[in-house]
Amino acid sequence: MSLFRPQVDSMTAYIPGEQPQTAGWIKLNTNENPYPPSPAVVEAIQKAATTRLNMYPDPLSTKFRQAVAPLFHVDPDWVLPGNGSDEVLMMILKTFVDPGEVISFPYPSYILYGTLAEIQGARFEHLPLNSDWSFNTTACQPVVDRSKIVFVPNPNSPSGNRWSDDELSSVRPKKGILLVDEAYGDFADTPHQGELVRNDASKTTIVTRTLSKSYSLAGIRLGFAIAHPDVIAGIRKVKDSYNCDAIALAAGVAAITDQAYMHQTRAKILATRKRLADALPSLGFAVTPSQANFVWTQHESRQHKKIYELLKDQKILVRYMKFDRPESEAPLGSTRDGLRITIGTDEEITQFLGTLKQVISKV
Amino acid sequence: MSLFRPQVDSMTAYIPGEQPQTAGWIKLNTNENPYPPSPAVVEAIQKAATTRLNMYPDPLSTKFRQAVAPLFHVDPDWVLPGNGSDEVLMMILKTFVDPGEVISFPYPSYILYGTLAEIQGARFEHLPLNSDWSFNTTACQPVVDRSKIVFVPNPNSPSGNRWSDDELSSVRPKKGILLVDEAYGDFADTPHQGELVRNDASKTTIVTRTLSKSYSLAGIRLGFAIAHPDVIAGIRKVKDSYNCDAIALAAGVAAITDQAYMHQTRAKILATRKRLADALPSLGFAVTPSQANFVWTQHESRQHKKIYELLKDQKILVRYMKFDRPESEAPLGSTRDGLRITIGTDEEITQFLGTLKQVISKV
Repeated sequence: MSLFRPQVDSMTAYIPGEQPQTAGWIKLNTNENPYPPSPAVVEAIQKAATTRLNMYPDPLSTKFRQAVAPLFHVDPDWVLPGNGSDEVLMMILKTFVDPGEVISFPYPSYILYGTLAEIQGARFEHLPLNSDWSFNTTACQPVVDRSKIVFVPNPNSPSGNRWSDDELSSVRPKKGILLVDEAYGDFADTPHQGELVRNDASKTTIVTRTLSKSYSLAGIRLGFAIAHPDVIAGIRKVKDSYNCDAIALAAGVAAITDQAYMHQTRAKILATRKRLADALPSLGFAVTPSQANFVWTQHESRQHKKIYELLKDQKILVRYMKFDRPESEAPLGSTRDGLRITIGTDEEITQFLGTLKQVISKV
Repeated sequence: MSLFRPQVDSMTAYIPGEQPQTAGWIKLNTNENPYPPSPAVVEAIQKAATTRLNMYPDPLSTKFRQAVAPLFHVDPDWVLPGNGSDEVLMMILKTFVDPGEVISFPYPSYILYGTLAEIQGARFEHLPLNSDWSFNTTACQPVVDRSKIVFVPNPNSPSGNRWSDDELSSVRPKKGILLVDEAYGDFADTPHQGELVRNDASKTTIVTRTLSKSYSLAGIRLGFAIAHPDVIAGIRKVKDSYNCDAIALAAGVAAITDQAYMHQTRAKILATRKRLADALPSLGFAVTPSQANFVWTQHESRQHKKIYELLKDQKILVRYMKFDRPESEAPLGSTRDGLRITIGTDEEITQFLGTLKQVISKV
């Protein structure tokens, strides 16, 4: 007899994108920032390495919260950091969702939400989309109505589309939380600065952010939630006492403080994104307009999986994604698959486009 | 109407020991190692700061598992690292314990187990102890029988006592997991080296370890579980993909590799522990024999809380602990409280003893 919980026995673990540990790859598959973090971050880590690592970190992450808060025009008690936004999302589930309750999210989007729901013993449902990635509001309504949390990645992955504030309002549950996952928020045309939570009189909006993408710090695991202090206080109850380590916090403060550097790498990525999006159609690809650091693209006739494999043979990794369920058909077309391509450096994208051209001629 | 889960609404968050963020304190309250980590750790962090922090860390923590495994005479697939052993404990609960099921642990011991059970919606019970901190096996048996997981911190906190392998066997659940939390394992007279899991034919033993104590790395948050690979594979399903950051993993490899340094600081701490334990009785304190990096002590007549407060006035922090429930009375005496004193440097303990002598004369 298995000792595992039935949920755990039956679940398939979430499979993250490939992370080759060898050198020489052009990695355009997991939406990492191709640029290193700010030099101030490197300096902060090297300094933190020599300071009282034998002691526990600040359980309240005070300095980090103080650094983050002004960016969103809130006080530090509106901010709760975690070990990557994955941990923040799990804490939020543990805070609000009882086993058997329902959470929902657009589909196709970030499938980890479903895995987290399974771990919590909750059920998940999908918010159906129209062919232009807008919400199919009629079909969404009953799902939203029974959701304890509606998760909306905004900009969305794999599509890169961004829903307007009005569209977000249309999927706000009556008796639940609207969680807007802004992992890619800094790459949007006009990034939010806390308006969603500050302007929500019902105090039921949570925005999550990460330093993995726009701040080039996927390696240190630091994300945070922004919400009304009453909400934050509840989430804090389920938090590990010392969930953020001293070095990550020092790196985070340095990264957040150096806004000029973030805006500089953001500008480079947006320029490269435009170049990639402009080039792909000439190779037969349709490109979904993106406000993130990646583009979702589908070829008019060639097999996406084959393209992915041939690129991999050349040590270029992109993300091949296929969404199986019927409700995913609207925005994805009949093949229900495609390629998500992270915006690398200009040189990486030049090399990618050259290789892609050769690959297309072979499939 | 509250949106929080009923468990979350009703629970009191676990309160960690005080962590003053200002300088000048002698901190003997949270069982940190008073010595800095190995110089090799500082070097590894400073090097890691300049290497691809924009990329996600290895989701399998391969190099760290390879470094750890030989110490316990197991293969790397017997090892699962986490963001501190707190995260490892929570992952284990999520893997094995359904809401409504029972977990148990000795009392008095580490009360966080109860908090984690509450978060999971599980119930917790206590394993009653005799006055010498041995298990009251008759009273324990029915509790063990209904436990999905029995948690045993070994050595125990706050007492510092260590149960023998035979005693541990006596609290192994028939249909559940025996979790031996060896956070303080390296300070024992004869530390375990994986025997508990390797020799368990039923594959239901999990040992957890941390780098916070013996490796002086409370600041970086790194712990791990050791268990049969079938057990590890189940726990991995509920793990965040990237739960350990690149810098913590690099620091961990360096710390584990420098065994000579760990044994050197361990030897210093054990010598200071003996000096402290020998000195306390002359001030009227009874000391529980300790195999950890702290001692549990009770004064024959003075109020422990008052002693704690007067020490704090002098910027010396020790841990005042009071255990409320009736079943705690056996090992604690009628006051059910006492002081847990972390072993600091020799100088810190000298200063502590001097101040304590003055304080005792005042209460």
